[in-house]
Amino acid sequence: MSEQRATQVLGYLHTLQDNLCRTFGDEMGGSFLRDAWQRPAGEGKLQGGGITACQEGGATMERAGVALSDVRGSQLPPSATARNPHLAGREFRAMGVSVVMHPRNPHAPTSHMNVRFFSAGDVWWFGGGFDLTPYVPYEKDIVAWHRAARDACAAVSTAAYPIARQHCDEYFFLKHRGEARGVGGIFYDDVNEQSPGMPLSWEQGFALMQRVGNAFHDAYKAVMDRRRDTPFTDRERRYQLYRRGRYVEFNLVFDRGTLFGLQSGGRTEAILVSMPPEAHWSYRSPDPQMDSKLLPYLTTLRGRDWLT
Amino acid sequence: MSEQRATQVLGYLHTLQDNLCRTFGDEMGGSFLRDAWQRPAGEGKLQGGGITACQEGGATMERAGVALSDVRGSQLPPSATARNPHLAGREFRAMGVSVVMHPRNPHAPTSHMNVRFFSAGDVWWFGGGFDLTPYVPYEKDIVAWHRAARDACAAVSTAAYPIARQHCDEYFFLKHRGEARGVGGIFYDDVNEQSPGMPLSWEQGFALMQRVGNAFHDAYKAVMDRRRDTPFTDRERRYQLYRRGRYVEFNLVFDRGTLFGLQSGGRTEAILVSMPPEAHWSYRSPDPQMDSKLLPYLTTLRGRDWLT
Repeated sequence: MSEQRATQVLGYLHTLQDNLCRTFGDEMGGSFLRDAWQRPAGEGKLQGGGITACQEGGATMERAGVALSDVRGSQLPPSATARNPHLAGREFRAMGVSVVMHPRNPHAPTSHMNVRFFSAGDVWWFGGGFDLTPYVPYEKDIVAWHRAARDACAAVSTAAYPIARQHCDEYFFLKHRGEARGVGGIFYDDVNEQSPGMPLSWEQGFALMQRVGNAFHDAYKAVMDRRRDTPFTDRERRYQLYRRGRYVEFNLVFDRGTLFGLQSGGRTEAILVSMPPEAHWSYRSPDPQMDSKLLPYLTTLRGRDWLT
Repeated sequence: MSEQRATQVLGYLHTLQDNLCRTFGDEMGGSFLRDAWQRPAGEGKLQGGGITACQEGGATMERAGVALSDVRGSQLPPSATARNPHLAGREFRAMGVSVVMHPRNPHAPTSHMNVRFFSAGDVWWFGGGFDLTPYVPYEKDIVAWHRAARDACAAVSTAAYPIARQHCDEYFFLKHRGEARGVGGIFYDDVNEQSPGMPLSWEQGFALMQRVGNAFHDAYKAVMDRRRDTPFTDRERRYQLYRRGRYVEFNLVFDRGTLFGLQSGGRTEAILVSMPPEAHWSYRSPDPQMDSKLLPYLTTLRGRDWLT
């Protein structure tokens, strides 16, 4: 039964990876290189395999990664399940797709999506979500993004969206800057039949994974179709490169998945496929005027419910 | 007595900052902007002040920071003293100068230096060191760098250089890459009359601080004078920008000072003055041929004693 479920999930993850690579690669003037890898069992490290798809220097995407992995380990790390610490140390299997896309055009936002499925013996749980990081903000994009998130959740559980939206706002926050990473979305973890607030059966959890993956595909494609050909200035480009420094800071200082991967001996290049192709730092913001348009979304408007 | 010592140290730190800003600013076609700051007492945060000197877009230095700070706190953080955990929680004073310089020319290495003095009641200790991160490596530079480090130490204690060199090699290491950050130098911490291996009186500790600060100034000036006008290619520049990504990774993932600063509510811009002005990431190295020249220094030649 457990094997059969894992096979179902894995099938969906491959389909999702293929769809994302086709839509944001071939159809947008770029192409993803697929790097398939296998790691044999041994020395307590994770064993398993995956396909890291990476696009660099595309017409639309300056850098994008769509990484699928399916790994097994003999000892579940404590960081993998906050709600079930008694599972730490058990044999486990983890599979998922992680996506970060850095478009070239500063009017087009960076996006991130992850869906994952864990099992340890007879215990299983799902996690996932997506969030958006604009440089030049458009309220139309933000509202559409949250609507897609809400609709993906609502098909499975009406409780899920408000919980996952708040979790996303809390998680994607740069404490040292006092700024959100972006305009949010949804983020959930440790979801199964016992989840407080959003208990889901396995079938519902798997349905949510598919809704979330597909909603990300459609919602981000819609944003990209609106913004990828917008003419932009050197000034907007410089500002984007500066703001991308914040993305680096979040991923390297705060992101638990990145830190866990780097510290546990994961595949560095696959983990850091989330890094932007180019990022700038300066002592002061290079453009207070562009700050004045963006920063309200990351500070005072942070956590706003865009759908009411 | 304690106040008098602190005043002596602070005097040296100001002189060092001024010398560094003159040599690597005005005399190399750039200038440091000095941002003086004061933070009043309150809410358990650090109080005190400092001068963050930052140069951006200079002819020689693409970005450089020379930060002086002198702060007091009501609770010494545990991370400040590994050897004396019983001091955690005490009132303390910490002062120091931190330097990171990112030259524009890929033949010129990035450099880092820090000297600091802590006191907590009647207990005091010194820390400091400097290390070098080349992009196009020159053995002549590496040997001269380590000779300067050894000579700075030897004037105070012959035991210090081998200990501080090894500490530097161990500390500036990117575990997830299996690479050293650079070609090393010296790094020491928690040094006072009780230090295992290199016990120093206060006078010796202060003398070592001055030797280290001055040796950094002279040794890095010598390297810069040799390399800053070397003609370079686009290919070398691209490689430098890629390797600077590693510098970002070290500082944000591993550097205790950076993480402590960001997590404890330090001045973010002053802490991140260590970031390069521009850094690139790609899935594979953009230049395996340049890797083949640099990587031996960061892997197989790592920890080599350059002076024998």
